[in-house]
Amino acid sequence: MTQKNRQWLIAARPLGRELQDSDFEFHEADVNDPSDGEVLVKTSYLGFDPALKSWMENIAGYVNPTEIGDVMRGTGVGTILKSKVHELGEGDVVCGPLGWQEFSVVRGEDVEKVPLDAPASAALGVLGTTGRTAYFGLLHIGKPKPGDVLVISGAAGATGSVVGQIGKICGCTVIGIAGGPEKCAWLVDDLGFDAAIDYKSDKVRKQLRELAPNGVDIFFDNVGGEVLNDGLGRLAQNARVVICGGISRYNYDPRDPEQMPPGPRNYFNVVHTGATIQGFLLPNFRNQFAVADARLLKWVQKGDLQYKEDILEGLENAPQALMRIYKGGNFGKQLLRL
Amino acid sequence: MTQKNRQWLIAARPLGRELQDSDFEFHEADVNDPSDGEVLVKTSYLGFDPALKSWMENIAGYVNPTEIGDVMRGTGVGTILKSKVHELGEGDVVCGPLGWQEFSVVRGEDVEKVPLDAPASAALGVLGTTGRTAYFGLLHIGKPKPGDVLVISGAAGATGSVVGQIGKICGCTVIGIAGGPEKCAWLVDDLGFDAAIDYKSDKVRKQLRELAPNGVDIFFDNVGGEVLNDGLGRLAQNARVVICGGISRYNYDPRDPEQMPPGPRNYFNVVHTGATIQGFLLPNFRNQFAVADARLLKWVQKGDLQYKEDILEGLENAPQALMRIYKGGNFGKQLLRL
Repeated sequence: MTQKNRQWLIAARPLGRELQDSDFEFHEADVNDPSDGEVLVKTSYLGFDPALKSWMENIAGYVNPTEIGDVMRGTGVGTILKSKVHELGEGDVVCGPLGWQEFSVVRGEDVEKVPLDAPASAALGVLGTTGRTAYFGLLHIGKPKPGDVLVISGAAGATGSVVGQIGKICGCTVIGIAGGPEKCAWLVDDLGFDAAIDYKSDKVRKQLRELAPNGVDIFFDNVGGEVLNDGLGRLAQNARVVICGGISRYNYDPRDPEQMPPGPRNYFNVVHTGATIQGFLLPNFRNQFAVADARLLKWVQKGDLQYKEDILEGLENAPQALMRIYKGGNFGKQLLRL
Repeated sequence: MTQKNRQWLIAARPLGRELQDSDFEFHEADVNDPSDGEVLVKTSYLGFDPALKSWMENIAGYVNPTEIGDVMRGTGVGTILKSKVHELGEGDVVCGPLGWQEFSVVRGEDVEKVPLDAPASAALGVLGTTGRTAYFGLLHIGKPKPGDVLVISGAAGATGSVVGQIGKICGCTVIGIAGGPEKCAWLVDDLGFDAAIDYKSDKVRKQLRELAPNGVDIFFDNVGGEVLNDGLGRLAQNARVVICGGISRYNYDPRDPEQMPPGPRNYFNVVHTGATIQGFLLPNFRNQFAVADARLLKWVQKGDLQYKEDILEGLENAPQALMRIYKGGNFGKQLLRL
């Protein structure tokens, strides 16, 4: 009897609405053998981030469109069972686009080996795309200097919490905006943030005025909406605004501009401050990944960079793992252990 | 009998509404003598730009607040009648903050000598703040490369028309957005723009898609609102968006955030494109003014840089000269000849 491969397929496109169970279809398929240049991987962890919903929606600008009936995309960590790639061997732990399934056949150039001295799950977070996003977004776009006031929205999220800790390493005053007293306490007590604003109970604008009386030098935005607008209202001269994510935007239909939420009316403050609002594409920094990875690993090992994982168990819970992200239900990087 | 000085005073603050006649009060005062370090100037031209309304409103961020009853501020060109400044002599033509009056006493360090080989009125436009704004905004923030697609909103305005011509000098493909067929024809037929979009009759979004099929590398914005949003929807990878002005915003009350128009919802496209949205403060480029002025003058003399002036006559028409700016009523740099 051939081994079966349990999978989640894309059943519907969640455009302009929240995700729901019926957007995914559980499926069983055969496990395929790798061809030349490919490896067969058994997944141990899947990682979840807000962009996954955009994949299901086929938002313009993404390179590989999805089809209904495709295996749901997603990054995972797993162990190679069979290899037809020279540089990769059986038993190697790799990270890559494994998808929501137990077994996957992927091309060798699409996966990266996970260093032996790092926890495998961290390759999906602080030592993977999340950590790199924080690293390049803060250091290359935010350009921190010692003494800068760095404000982060979505600060208790996987990316935001790394941004803040790198900001402390750089000598910044770090203020996090997060939802709820538990997350705020974690930022200040455990991660060493200088202050935290609970957007669910505090008035963000008023708190920013008090905590950053001379303005915000770097605003690292994972949220969009009113929080971003409040940040733009407090910019210091020559401030840098890093647009990294927009969790408040994911349930709108990007094909329908009238339905999209308005942009930040305070964008015009860049005129009075000479400030910069900038996004970034992680692949453009590819030639510097090795340096970033080495630094992030060192910081983790030294204890300068702490991280939290929020782990659900079992492939059957993959849709739930994704859905809770958009509601701030996770506390730490959302993972699924198979 | 002492000479009388006719003046316009600020009578009211036009916050959250359009300007009206009663915001200004006509007044006669004595002509004062200059003290040490000052000159007495007889004004020949006044220049008008959208920021003048903000001065009347005392918007936060401006250094010298205005008071009701102050002489209305404004930049002018005039001839020195008496000088108590070593470097400036009787008969010198200078440009500076003369205000809306026939005679003014100003400090020597606040005025600049107008070069003899330039038309005096041009010091208020293409060879003054307007030209410098276009020069530094495009070259230092927009960073044009030959072959870049440069789109300008408010393209027939004093700043926009200079931006586009410098863009052509830099080898860009230049598309202007302006109001009405006369302005559009001027951009293409006289200034050498590659194309013009009439926002009053064309659909800006559709036209941009056709004229810039590979995206916009530089969007130079003088307008804000939907036009800016449409531009942000067409950004190329690593595009630069220069926020220079926001004529669509001047009639809102900046103290009342709820009343302000929304920002551009397409701001989030910076994430997919790695684009930059940036403002700039002209005084930060002060140490490079001499180079810019020399280049602008050379381009004007060679005919590479054409400009249009829209001149009203007589100090009594100063309020009308300002009001027409916010309605796009002027065609060319708005000036008043005394």
